[in-house]
Amino acid sequence: MIELVQGGSITSARGFLAGGAFAGIKTAGDDALDLAILLSEAPAAVAGTFTTNRIESPSVTLSRQRAANGSARAVVANSGCANCCVGEQGLRDAEEMASLAAGHAGVPDEDVLVCSTGLIGVELPMALVRQNTGNIKLTEDGGHQFAKAIMTTDSRPKEVAVSVDIEGRRVILGGAAKGVGMVHPNMATMLAFIATDAPVASGFLQQTLRDAVDVSFNMIDVDGDQSTNDTVLALANGAAGGAEIEAGTAAAEAFQEALTYVCTALAKELVRDGEGAQRLIEVEVEGAATPQEARTAARAIASSMLVKAMVHGRDPNWGRLMMALGKSGIRFEESGVDLFINDIHMVHQGVAIPYLKDAVISAMCDPEVRFRVDVNAGDGSATAWGCDLTEEYVTFNSAYST
Amino acid sequence: MIELVQGGSITSARGFLAGGAFAGIKTAGDDALDLAILLSEAPAAVAGTFTTNRIESPSVTLSRQRAANGSARAVVANSGCANCCVGEQGLRDAEEMASLAAGHAGVPDEDVLVCSTGLIGVELPMALVRQNTGNIKLTEDGGHQFAKAIMTTDSRPKEVAVSVDIEGRRVILGGAAKGVGMVHPNMATMLAFIATDAPVASGFLQQTLRDAVDVSFNMIDVDGDQSTNDTVLALANGAAGGAEIEAGTAAAEAFQEALTYVCTALAKELVRDGEGAQRLIEVEVEGAATPQEARTAARAIASSMLVKAMVHGRDPNWGRLMMALGKSGIRFEESGVDLFINDIHMVHQGVAIPYLKDAVISAMCDPEVRFRVDVNAGDGSATAWGCDLTEEYVTFNSAYST
Repeated sequence: MIELVQGGSITSARGFLAGGAFAGIKTAGDDALDLAILLSEAPAAVAGTFTTNRIESPSVTLSRQRAANGSARAVVANSGCANCCVGEQGLRDAEEMASLAAGHAGVPDEDVLVCSTGLIGVELPMALVRQNTGNIKLTEDGGHQFAKAIMTTDSRPKEVAVSVDIEGRRVILGGAAKGVGMVHPNMATMLAFIATDAPVASGFLQQTLRDAVDVSFNMIDVDGDQSTNDTVLALANGAAGGAEIEAGTAAAEAFQEALTYVCTALAKELVRDGEGAQRLIEVEVEGAATPQEARTAARAIASSMLVKAMVHGRDPNWGRLMMALGKSGIRFEESGVDLFINDIHMVHQGVAIPYLKDAVISAMCDPEVRFRVDVNAGDGSATAWGCDLTEEYVTFNSAYST
Repeated sequence: MIELVQGGSITSARGFLAGGAFAGIKTAGDDALDLAILLSEAPAAVAGTFTTNRIESPSVTLSRQRAANGSARAVVANSGCANCCVGEQGLRDAEEMASLAAGHAGVPDEDVLVCSTGLIGVELPMALVRQNTGNIKLTEDGGHQFAKAIMTTDSRPKEVAVSVDIEGRRVILGGAAKGVGMVHPNMATMLAFIATDAPVASGFLQQTLRDAVDVSFNMIDVDGDQSTNDTVLALANGAAGGAEIEAGTAAAEAFQEALTYVCTALAKELVRDGEGAQRLIEVEVEGAATPQEARTAARAIASSMLVKAMVHGRDPNWGRLMMALGKSGIRFEESGVDLFINDIHMVHQGVAIPYLKDAVISAMCDPEVRFRVDVNAGDGSATAWGCDLTEEYVTFNSAYST
């Protein structure tokens, strides 16, 4: 039974402290923060998933290496600069930033992971990082500051915390994320952090995180572009007490469910706050030959520019859904396709059902538009999320220099 | 030596007639045409390349079957209706439309190919096709009418004709195409037709066409979506006289060059007239491990929404080119990348060169913006074309129902 923690944050999980400061890496503004630390009071199991872009920020490289150790104490994150495409200086700066945070938090250098987000191609202003790391106050309710400090073009912080009973103990998972699309109008970056007091080993945490990310962050799309800095990190410090959760048990299942809930909630928040976005698109594909084909088709539909544009215009142009389904390359017969828009049956066995257009347009005015496609080729199903494509997205991502 | 035929059209090739009529399939307008026939006076070798979308218009299905015979006499094409996702009626209508055109032109049914473009999910208004096929006047200068009748959201017809000397004889190739992005705001469709009086066999024509399409139409992107109706057809009737052109000869090379020229000219016209587009983007990738990897990378860059948006904003955000290059998945080292914007060297060995921003912005105001990326991993090179992403694209593709 998963329960939301009202007003929760990443430090809702016991034994975690966090805080943020303004170092001047991004433009100053009301209460702007751009440098933050998340600290576990005890050594925590750590797991991570990282960008597959061949161009990778050295901050990602360092975190990937250190996460492989399976244990960590802290994460330091900055917004405003991606620390990417800056040659060998990038790794030196990531290492120094981790070392500064380690010194401030009183933990070993190699127990600190680093995340950066912002403009590609400019070096981290290390003088500012050196001056300001010491200003970060690490507190039990510092999670909100952490969520705020990682924002770039996000219009609001993205946080969630839940509790779940596991073998009679209350386990808490808190998360923070930032998106979404292009950040400083120069790159796409998505970062997410999950802290939990569950008692788990790093191998189990890694597998659980991978499964959760596969059905959440890996199923969202804002603009089809993939950042050089994408990172999801999970830390689990066991502060909830109890025996270590073992794979294959009811406890493991409950933990997987809670972690998936947190990842999905954050992923949907990212899409909902997509640059220029006004509506969330949910695409369910059912009846695919395999689960993988269902994923492929759901993502193809959710990331089609034409589907995104039709949602923006509340236009029930279901032919675009058929087009996107077809270009995904999954196996199906046209005559097997059923298609629904917000539960209104639009296409049966590949042929349009005469529909009341005004009713569908009305349904498409909802803040969440759901497309359900049954291809009747098997048992595979998957859900993907996207956002609509608006004039504001284009203006935002093109009006930078002129 | 390829020479442009001034004011040329698809009927510049000898022995071809064409014409168009308004049947009322699309909205009436000044001089609107929506039904057209291209006729070869003698049997012509035929070759075609077709959409790989799993959802395919029965017009495509029929043309694919008939093109496989290697010989044809005519093509009938309509705009305003894609004849797609309409169940079994679609094939019956395609066959009847071909039969009506065959009767009008006085050729066997099975020698007529069919192309449709327009709205998905509605049936062809066959009553109108039956009434109006007979109104099409087939003339030697009817190529312009043909090019006009296949337009949907195109702002202008796309035509080109060239002549080339092959073994002392003047061979002419004429072409017509339509695009581009979403057509009636419901689908992406690209059709192109090439007529030539060169004496070639269908097997040679098919191979030559495939090679030409690979470096032209297959290297353009407006919005990443692929139509259910995409078709390129070439007809060669030998009216230029002379011996049949054989593969592996100088004549074959000259013909390949001329066909590639025509396909590339039409492909670039499609992109230049992309929905909402204001600038053409040319992406050259050099030094890839293989030609295929160069193609993959060039297409990834040319189709990135963020790259398209930065070109619209004349914003030299080269980090987006690195991001798109990285997500393409081709093999390279970041430290091997050199990057140029309109010949201005921006990145050397993966690191930014300090540049005068105003100069690059000024270069990016050109109607054609060229990105050149050398990944220094081999000898593979390729060129792709895209257009910028503008607010008008979004407005156009979303403002249909509301």
